Amino acid sequence: KINGERLWDSLMEMAQIGPGIAGGNNRQTVTDEDGEARHLFQRWCQDAGGTMGVDDMGTMFARFEGTDPDALPVYVGSHLDTQPTGGKYDGVLGVLAGLEIIRTMRDLGIKTRRPVVVTNWTNEEGTRFAPAMLASGVFAGVLDRDWAYARTDAQGKRFGDELERIGWKGDEPVGTRKMHSFFELHIEQGPILEAEGKQVGVVTHGQGLRWIECTVTGKGQHTGSTPMYMRRNAGRGLARVTELVHEIALKHQPNAVGAIGQIDVYPNSRNIIPEKVVFTIDFRSHVLDTLEAMVAELNARAPGLCADIGVKFSSELVGFFDPPAFDETLVGRVRDAAERLGYSHMDIISGAGHDACWINRLYPTTMVMCPCVDGLSHNEAEEIFPEWAEAGANVLMHAVLETAEV
Amino acid sequence: KINGERLWDSLMEMAQIGPGIAGGNNRQTVTDEDGEARHLFQRWCQDAGGTMGVDDMGTMFARFEGTDPDALPVYVGSHLDTQPTGGKYDGVLGVLAGLEIIRTMRDLGIKTRRPVVVTNWTNEEGTRFAPAMLASGVFAGVLDRDWAYARTDAQGKRFGDELERIGWKGDEPVGTRKMHSFFELHIEQGPILEAEGKQVGVVTHGQGLRWIECTVTGKGQHTGSTPMYMRRNAGRGLARVTELVHEIALKHQPNAVGAIGQIDVYPNSRNIIPEKVVFTIDFRSHVLDTLEAMVAELNARAPGLCADIGVKFSSELVGFFDPPAFDETLVGRVRDAAERLGYSHMDIISGAGHDACWINRLYPTTMVMCPCVDGLSHNEAEEIFPEWAEAGANVLMHAVLETAEV
Ligand SMILES: NC(=O)NCCC(=O)O
Ligand SMILES: NC(=O)NCCC(=O)O
Repeated sequence: KINGERLWDSLMEMAQIGPGIAGGNNRQTVTDEDGEARHLFQRWCQDAGGTMGVDDMGTMFARFEGTDPDALPVYVGSHLDTQPTGGKYDGVLGVLAGLEIIRTMRDLGIKTRRPVVVTNWTNEEGTRFAPAMLASGVFAGVLDRDWAYARTDAQGKRFGDELERIGWKGDEPVGTRKMHSFFELHIEQGPILEAEGKQVGVVTHGQGLRWIECTVTGKGQHTGSTPMYMRRNAGRGLARVTELVHEIALKHQPNAVGAIGQIDVYPNSRNIIPEKVVFTIDFRSHVLDTLEAMVAELNARAPGLCADIGVKFSSELVGFFDPPAFDETLVGRVRDAAERLGYSHMDIISGAGHDACWINRLYPTTMVMCPCVDGLSHNEAEEIFPEWAEAGANVLMHAVLETAEV
Repeated sequence: KINGERLWDSLMEMAQIGPGIAGGNNRQTVTDEDGEARHLFQRWCQDAGGTMGVDDMGTMFARFEGTDPDALPVYVGSHLDTQPTGGKYDGVLGVLAGLEIIRTMRDLGIKTRRPVVVTNWTNEEGTRFAPAMLASGVFAGVLDRDWAYARTDAQGKRFGDELERIGWKGDEPVGTRKMHSFFELHIEQGPILEAEGKQVGVVTHGQGLRWIECTVTGKGQHTGSTPMYMRRNAGRGLARVTELVHEIALKHQPNAVGAIGQIDVYPNSRNIIPEKVVFTIDFRSHVLDTLEAMVAELNARAPGLCADIGVKFSSELVGFFDPPAFDETLVGRVRDAAERLGYSHMDIISGAGHDACWINRLYPTTMVMCPCVDGLSHNEAEEIFPEWAEAGANVLMHAVLETAEV
């Protein structure tokens, strides 16, 4: 069993870096705070006897040798970056639980045949630079590295420049290292485990995602002196598409979700009718046909709903992944570990996207989930109980040790 | 007659300060660019023989003596600040036409009995600091000076601090000077004069205004892992209120308008359901009962429309004025001047708010309007023809000279 107190202390220490304004964290990717978090993680890994490699997307790989240096390693990890108003556990738990496995192995003198590599993926959240899971997407060969470097944030800063600026662009070409398998522990970020009273979620599948950046273009005119019949109000286009997205998602219950999280209005003046509104739709489903049907319905209906009120709708896909099905052998090992350790558990579908979703395309992959209070995540009030973190980390360790051949 | 070419050249020279990105201007109130515009205007006024006074709201008063120094002066002016994506004429025409009257009087050796004071009101636009017509509202005693100083922009900067920073907080207490009357020339900012083929608008009334800052509060949750039935999406509240505002305004056609120009979403992340949306409704009508009915309908319906989807609606009035009726004698003088000068003209209601609307509460006031191309304003593409500016300035001069007793 892992040391639950040590794991919790490390979580709390990491949460000191990039504090939010309401008890959570604002430690967005490739900011100074992200850099500081990386240094702390690096120090912890070195203290635990690891050797750090960093690839040119900034992803960190702390390698801990097994008895067979030629064996393909088992990878375990998640991400240290957070939302602008994020919680202390989303991502962080998965990285620090990986480290806690190593610390426990040292405490107990456990050696595996395969090396174990604890990983911190860059830009999992995708808030500052879309899409989410950027570095793992490049690692998986689905996204292009130079395209990723050129992604810009709201201030027009490029991802590649910011990665260099904080000093974490490594020299290892992304995607060159080979894995035996990948494991990721993550908080559920939804309400199901807590509602069902389960300590552990055995993740069998994930939802797929489509992020569609939409632009509605009208005419910037005076709000007072422009007669109603002359207006081309882009804000009304946003209103219609907001309701359309909701309606489309409801149609596919309980197999889909949809919402608009990011909205920017131009020129955003109280007495100017919105000239342009740019916003991103987030559609998800664990059923690929449903996901595609949602996008098709949006594309079929949104342009007309906008044209009816004299504004123009256009859209671009800025993030995507298809619903993953995780490796059955590894899933079985997670389920067996939970059973063996006496934890209540259930099979679950991941509602959120994770780096594991991309790595699953290349190597046998699976995930472990722990509940979170009220299903609340992407919110500074995100909370979990130490027992939940401990249970998840124990299940993770048992599945990893079995796979790494103890 | 005024010198149309000189007026146009001054307009073009002023437009060099705070250029926009699309041929217009971004010279928002109490920015460095506003300061620079003030210096240019001050120099021009001094060159024309004026004496500049500045009040503690930053409003500039360039006094040109008549033959009777004890007579109450006739005031004429408008504003030099612009929208973030503003045109070159909105406000500026009224200030520089005032100056052109003075220059013409000097050319022609005309003396009035009353002094003429050319005025540049601070923060007419109200984009950076709500409400619009801030300085004239304080001058009129409707708004409080210290409340005005404490208004903040999107960066949290205070109006009073910024006014001091750019060096234009004068020592004259706002509202102490007395006027005989006030005249304002302004572009129509709407399509009516152009559509009717008239060179001059004789402004008899104005629309009243209510700016209502609304906050819709939901819950910031993960867009992927939060089931649809658990969501409290503040963005849907915005969508519903957007359509409600439009519906309410349509109900009162052709006597009202309504739209939402400014929208800020929190935390504005692609994978967080909007926790909070803050936006400002702009309702206008030249009929007071209609204006009040619109606000009442909003307050009656918006909270319920939001509660139905689990989000909370609250609102605060951040800008207001009642529909003004301008002074009949002065209106008659403007109409007579247009007639006498042989310009096609019509009576018109001002769709936009103007400093004249506030000053009208204290002193006999009226306005002259000139057409603008396509009725387009609050847009960098705002355009007028030099002949229109010249016609408006000539009518303004004749009405001012008659009032100042030539
Ligand atoms: N786990 C998580 O929140 N990842 C960010 C990508 C997503 O929105 O699902
Ligand atoms: N004239 C003008 O656009 N003034 C700003 C106040 C308003 O929105 O009417």
